[in-house]
Amino acid sequence: MLIITLLTDFGSFYPAQMKGMILSRLGEKARGITFVDIAHDIPPQDVRAGAFALLSSVRYFPPGTIHLAVVDPGVGTDRLGLVVESGGQTFVGPDNGLLLPAARCLNAPGMPLLAYKIVASPEIVGSGLGQAGPAAAATSVSSTFHGRDIFAPVAAMLASGKCPAAVGPQVRPKDLNFGEARRTERGFEATVIYVDRFGNLILNMRKVPTFPVSLLGVKLKRAVTYGKARRIEPLITLGSHGFAEIAVNLGSAAEAFRLKAGDRIELEEI
Amino acid sequence: MLIITLLTDFGSFYPAQMKGMILSRLGEKARGITFVDIAHDIPPQDVRAGAFALLSSVRYFPPGTIHLAVVDPGVGTDRLGLVVESGGQTFVGPDNGLLLPAARCLNAPGMPLLAYKIVASPEIVGSGLGQAGPAAAATSVSSTFHGRDIFAPVAAMLASGKCPAAVGPQVRPKDLNFGEARRTERGFEATVIYVDRFGNLILNMRKVPTFPVSLLGVKLKRAVTYGKARRIEPLITLGSHGFAEIAVNLGSAAEAFRLKAGDRIELEEI
Amino acid sequence: MLIITLLTDFGSFYPAQMKGMILSRLGEKARGITFVDIAHDIPPQDVRAGAFALLSSVRYFPPGTIHLAVVDPGVGTDRLGLVVESGGQTFVGPDNGLLLPAARCLNAPGMPLLAYKIVASPEIVGSGLGQAGPAAAATSVSSTFHGRDIFAPVAAMLASGKCPAAVGPQVRPKDLNFGEARRTERGFEATVIYVDRFGNLILNMRKVPTFPVSLLGVKLKRAVTYGKARRIEPLITLGSHGFAEIAVNLGSAAEAFRLKAGDRIELEEI
Repeated sequence: MLIITLLTDFGSFYPAQMKGMILSRLGEKARGITFVDIAHDIPPQDVRAGAFALLSSVRYFPPGTIHLAVVDPGVGTDRLGLVVESGGQTFVGPDNGLLLPAARCLNAPGMPLLAYKIVASPEIVGSGLGQAGPAAAATSVSSTFHGRDIFAPVAAMLASGKCPAAVGPQVRPKDLNFGEARRTERGFEATVIYVDRFGNLILNMRKVPTFPVSLLGVKLKRAVTYGKARRIEPLITLGSHGFAEIAVNLGSAAEAFRLKAGDRIELEEI
Repeated sequence: MLIITLLTDFGSFYPAQMKGMILSRLGEKARGITFVDIAHDIPPQDVRAGAFALLSSVRYFPPGTIHLAVVDPGVGTDRLGLVVESGGQTFVGPDNGLLLPAARCLNAPGMPLLAYKIVASPEIVGSGLGQAGPAAAATSVSSTFHGRDIFAPVAAMLASGKCPAAVGPQVRPKDLNFGEARRTERGFEATVIYVDRFGNLILNMRKVPTFPVSLLGVKLKRAVTYGKARRIEPLITLGSHGFAEIAVNLGSAAEAFRLKAGDRIELEEI
Repeated sequence: MLIITLLTDFGSFYPAQMKGMILSRLGEKARGITFVDIAHDIPPQDVRAGAFALLSSVRYFPPGTIHLAVVDPGVGTDRLGLVVESGGQTFVGPDNGLLLPAARCLNAPGMPLLAYKIVASPEIVGSGLGQAGPAAAATSVSSTFHGRDIFAPVAAMLASGKCPAAVGPQVRPKDLNFGEARRTERGFEATVIYVDRFGNLILNMRKVPTFPVSLLGVKLKRAVTYGKARRIEPLITLGSHGFAEIAVNLGSAAEAFRLKAGDRIELEEI
């Protein structure tokens, strides 16, 4: 059973090129492969939003899954490429913190988090796709698309059974944390780390405040689920991802409060 | 051959969690699985639009297909979860009418439509994903995401060969109909049930009027296909889904007439 | 190993119907099939943008891949349907130029490009899906959706081992070229052929000008990659697809310059 997930901020057609590259490299070994697209609509170059989406998702995948994640504002500069192993799953992507929250969440307590720096070898950057003619040009590494030209081939190598240590020496990876909502005199100061399709505002808080709070003067009902609030009533709940989120039942909190990913908010005790 | 389709209003990354859950539960039985995403951009909580997209699509899938459909404004309340069998295909989702039009369309005349209420058993809500460490937390049922925590595991159970009756007792499911365009003195009164990507307005009419009609004062050409109209000419045609649709050749009817899903319209005889 | 890619301007749920049709026709032969969605968000009826996305992607796929591409403003008129063979890959879609740039790019120098006109035979348009009951209606050919009713069945035929010549007689297909940026007295006149998700403007130029240029009075830095420019600095680079593109590092060139696909621009020598 071979499962490769993809998470990018590429929108359309670039992810397909990554899959094509993996299929070309694996050849018959790709038989029975299952690709799962986690998201390709991460806000452009928003590493934190990408890290959140990856973190939220990996725990549902079985051991052996390979996660290929590319939100990569530093492509073409000297930022490293990484392979990280954790909890039986493997991560491939840029060394900018994107992979770390997810990898940490899978890691068993006390076990080391193993990370390897990708050294572009001929096996990775390739000398042919098995494709004759003009298409052979495809094997050069572009400066703008390491997702396809480096990370996808590395995922294919791992999928064909190579061990992560084969890509390069062990390194200490860059980390990323979502910050933590801060208790203030008046309540909490938090940051919106993601806005989902329903306009729900996901916060860097792992718990819902135990006292009643308001946002911009509007009381937030403390609810275990959306359906428990009245139509258009704003609420705060613990999302299925383990972070607090502000929602408007049958509406959009992002629109109602005019907030977006990255915004700082204040939850006032009332 | 194992085919599971997914239809939701979740946008990105939540559907991947559902797939991850199915793959985790199936283990090696997932080998060769084919996931087909029908749509994840159903307008948020628009059960009717979801039911239309599902109804339009299921007839093209082979017997044995499992359809996992979640547009679920009532999640976390006491609405039931359902498994419905029809025409050799199986449907899993909330009991809010989402599944019924599609299930009815596949049903052979005179055959009963079999529906079962999902009773959350340990086999469904799980006691582990085969994933050690912190990830084991993933097995608790959230109040906000039954798509992943109940319906996906049920789909996996069915995919592994369990019969639908194993999920719970037989029930009479909630139905949904699209209404029927109504003949009036002046023409027809209809409802827009879906707006597709081209801005075509899909109506709750199974036939195109046999007499010439106008919408908001603009004559609609009766055409068998878009290309038969002039550039930017509004037309009415019978869509490939069997419903009448209003289109603007090489343009968007939704923009031209400023209409959206849910709007009532009047087609006037001219 | 059976790989079928899909590229359309259909948005959601219509592509799933095409996959359902292929799975229904192939039956057990579909076991282990890998669908890869290249893009379903091609701007509606923009054949040139679709041709660009296909051209950019096919070289990364292995021989044997079948590409099903449908951007089809002429559906239902007398435009032909095509099967084109090139470089070991096969293309299915309308004869409007959509397939040609990609097919030419795979073609080995001196080898003929083989194209066949699809003649709708009973084997293609079908007499049943193996689906009993009302669903059998699915086998009629709609006037508005050849992607599902003709091109998908043809892809299934090819996937089951039929040779392209089996679909109909050889024809000379319609071609499409992206034009070529034109050297003028003042610099270059070019056309935007695609705007990607980052707002990068992809031009019909195969090289970056060797002299410094400006666009609408703003100097474009000549850079090998986005990260080499300062924050919000406009740049011109050779994209990984082999076309010049104008980008704004950490911003959107489409927004900054208010340009969209199809727009003509002038790059002025400075």
